[in-house]
Amino acid sequence: MNLCERIKAIVGANGWIDAAELRQRPVDFWNATPTHALGLARPASTEALSALLALCNEARQPLIIEGGRTNLVSATLGDAQTLLVSLERLNAIGRPDAGAMTLEVGAGAVLEHVQQVCAAADLRFGLDFGARGSASIGGALSTNAGGFQALRYGVARDQVLGLECVLADGTVLSHLSSYAKDNTGYDLKHLFIGSEGTLGVITKAVLKLQPKPTSCHTALLAFASFEQVIATLTALRRSLNGTLSAFELMWQEFFQFNVDALLQGRAPLDASYPYYALCEVEGFAGEHDGEHFQTLISDLFDSGSVVDAVIANSERQRAELWRIREEFEDEIQLFSTLIDFDVSLPLPRIEHFADQVREALALQFPENLGLHVLAHLGDGNVHVTTGLPSAARKDDLKRCVYRIIAELGGSISAEHGIGLAKKAYLHYSRSPGELALMRTLKGALDPHNILNPGKVIDAATPN
Amino acid sequence: MNLCERIKAIVGANGWIDAAELRQRPVDFWNATPTHALGLARPASTEALSALLALCNEARQPLIIEGGRTNLVSATLGDAQTLLVSLERLNAIGRPDAGAMTLEVGAGAVLEHVQQVCAAADLRFGLDFGARGSASIGGALSTNAGGFQALRYGVARDQVLGLECVLADGTVLSHLSSYAKDNTGYDLKHLFIGSEGTLGVITKAVLKLQPKPTSCHTALLAFASFEQVIATLTALRRSLNGTLSAFELMWQEFFQFNVDALLQGRAPLDASYPYYALCEVEGFAGEHDGEHFQTLISDLFDSGSVVDAVIANSERQRAELWRIREEFEDEIQLFSTLIDFDVSLPLPRIEHFADQVREALALQFPENLGLHVLAHLGDGNVHVTTGLPSAARKDDLKRCVYRIIAELGGSISAEHGIGLAKKAYLHYSRSPGELALMRTLKGALDPHNILNPGKVIDAATPN
Repeated sequence: MNLCERIKAIVGANGWIDAAELRQRPVDFWNATPTHALGLARPASTEALSALLALCNEARQPLIIEGGRTNLVSATLGDAQTLLVSLERLNAIGRPDAGAMTLEVGAGAVLEHVQQVCAAADLRFGLDFGARGSASIGGALSTNAGGFQALRYGVARDQVLGLECVLADGTVLSHLSSYAKDNTGYDLKHLFIGSEGTLGVITKAVLKLQPKPTSCHTALLAFASFEQVIATLTALRRSLNGTLSAFELMWQEFFQFNVDALLQGRAPLDASYPYYALCEVEGFAGEHDGEHFQTLISDLFDSGSVVDAVIANSERQRAELWRIREEFEDEIQLFSTLIDFDVSLPLPRIEHFADQVREALALQFPENLGLHVLAHLGDGNVHVTTGLPSAARKDDLKRCVYRIIAELGGSISAEHGIGLAKKAYLHYSRSPGELALMRTLKGALDPHNILNPGKVIDAATPN
Repeated sequence: MNLCERIKAIVGANGWIDAAELRQRPVDFWNATPTHALGLARPASTEALSALLALCNEARQPLIIEGGRTNLVSATLGDAQTLLVSLERLNAIGRPDAGAMTLEVGAGAVLEHVQQVCAAADLRFGLDFGARGSASIGGALSTNAGGFQALRYGVARDQVLGLECVLADGTVLSHLSSYAKDNTGYDLKHLFIGSEGTLGVITKAVLKLQPKPTSCHTALLAFASFEQVIATLTALRRSLNGTLSAFELMWQEFFQFNVDALLQGRAPLDASYPYYALCEVEGFAGEHDGEHFQTLISDLFDSGSVVDAVIANSERQRAELWRIREEFEDEIQLFSTLIDFDVSLPLPRIEHFADQVREALALQFPENLGLHVLAHLGDGNVHVTTGLPSAARKDDLKRCVYRIIAELGGSISAEHGIGLAKKAYLHYSRSPGELALMRTLKGALDPHNILNPGKVIDAATPN
């Protein structure tokens, strides 16, 4: 039997898609070119995946684990010699435990389904982002996804209690603990969460859940200065008893653009202020929550921390406010060669960062098509988007922004990860010693470099 | 120059205590025998520690990093050939950033000092446990400490944003990021947090802070069944907007014992119920918090989830309720050969676990001197204490309880760690594959086995 036949024997005929059929499929959501690969294996159990990895390790066969294929960093891009592996059949979702507030799920479960199962039990899985309808739990954990609610619940890593995964040689590590305190030696799960499938394959997780809030109130605030923004975020964190779910900052140029594009200029607030924050509070105290929120905002207004504000008074109005923050179709049209950054910075340096980027673009890239800046401010996470008329200077522009990030002690990837797209820039955020240790770990856990080879960090010695 | 002289040249005369002087000092808080060691080095900077480690690595000199020496698992016990290293001079505490809610501290800073600095800025570092006056931040992080407030803020690991540490060969990894989202490759800090100084030495950290609550209300609740306990915990989590800071469960035997010992039997509640919970809520809404808490408890009483309750109406009464939970002097007298367990279990199995331990003791160890059970219930963390008239069957009793833990999918160490004391029992919670991976990591990061050798896990190949 050749390797493909042996793989087929492990995953079954239903679990195998061959190279020819795969060429009908685009690489991923962002890349419409045909998929080239040895084939796609879809194991139906952890045991089958274990057998598959043991075989590939023995045969030095490189492989890529696919999730929902909506990542932004070419994390699943391979070539005709690579085996693709999908965990979509490992998609069991257990029953939420309301007392312990935990849920066991398979890596192939889709985030949105998990959210629905939790909501039906009056619980919440505190992870949410745009690609919820495609992203798998395995993908979200292996990339340590962030998103809108990290301010309240933390990133993906913070919401995992136990983990099952399979090492490159097929060893199954099953530590599906469902409690918050567990100091039995090294915490292995954090090696696999966020390492983008390069150190092991996540197959199952015990998720930590939250009570589902019963009220939701949303406001759009305008500020005359960044100091006002910080003062308001601090006050809301302090006064809202931890029920602040979102604080999404928009710089003027982006706000104005999306208001014009989506609402034909009918702005909910005068669009000439330098900063706008969409904030949302989700509580458990019904009407009292709404009154408290309203009082807080009017206090902030009276004290001069907020210069204008609108509170959504209907679900329709709430959706309209979120559209300003979330819709990117027109932006994608505007920036023909789209260049986007997903970075983190120390909070006190964010204003300066945005100013520095604006200046650098004006001076060094005067042909730029605009500068849109957004932030999940409480996480220090800034999204910057710009464009150039042609792709020629794209890499120069990236290096220019990453140099500013490095000078300010920031991170060149806040929540999207590294994959292939950012690998060449990793050194802007990581020292030679850190990169060397990453290579040491890669070598120790995947000595034959079969797991998502070439992603995140190059192995010390090529296979 | 011999090795001690070369070390002295690095740390300075002030930074060196020799073997003779050390013998005047007890090993640690729990072990009064004299300290035997090569000497104690006290580097005053990360650079000095780096030079010291490079030298020791080169010379294959084993060393132990000391924190406050109040750990419970013989984590800093060595022999006359071991070098001790204290980071007490690396104790700088920065200025809390109120906007970003972060604080940079040296590993030698004492937990209580950090708490005080935060409190003075209306902020809180959400880690607290009995040894706060001795424990260093480096010790708390390297052991991933837990404590009373984990229910609300998580364990030590959850409260660290950035970390600086030194590898066995002296390489300094300084990733002092102060933001919540950072996906630039592998998250190295989680390798060092919780690995008890066996993979690297933590020298500095950026801590995540919380707003300091402005109100505190405390109640002691009594329950007739474990179902009532779970129903009450669930209701409090759901209704208190995340301001529930403690939910400390006490089984009847312990409660009765401490009430008799400390309060001469003047129990705040009838002492014959099977379960008692000390719960505390800390909020930001002043008087409203107290009214809300009172209403909640009276609702729980009306619905039959709570059978008796007392709310502390003064700081003195609050302190008295906490004494019942926190004081152990009389217990230590009672259990001549004290045997204590710090374990975690899935919440739905905790009642059964305590019953099984009670039955096993009655059957197999009828000479036992009683059974005290406590739980940080929201964390699944149970503390069990018993005693035997003599030490002969101590190890048998431990194995008996750990077997029950293993059968129920629990953890043999929730928050105290492994050190030397629990190393022989680690396999009850970890599979051969997990233990092998821990050895692989130890070998990859500390190839000459110089860092706290013999603790947590034995190196694959002896030095």
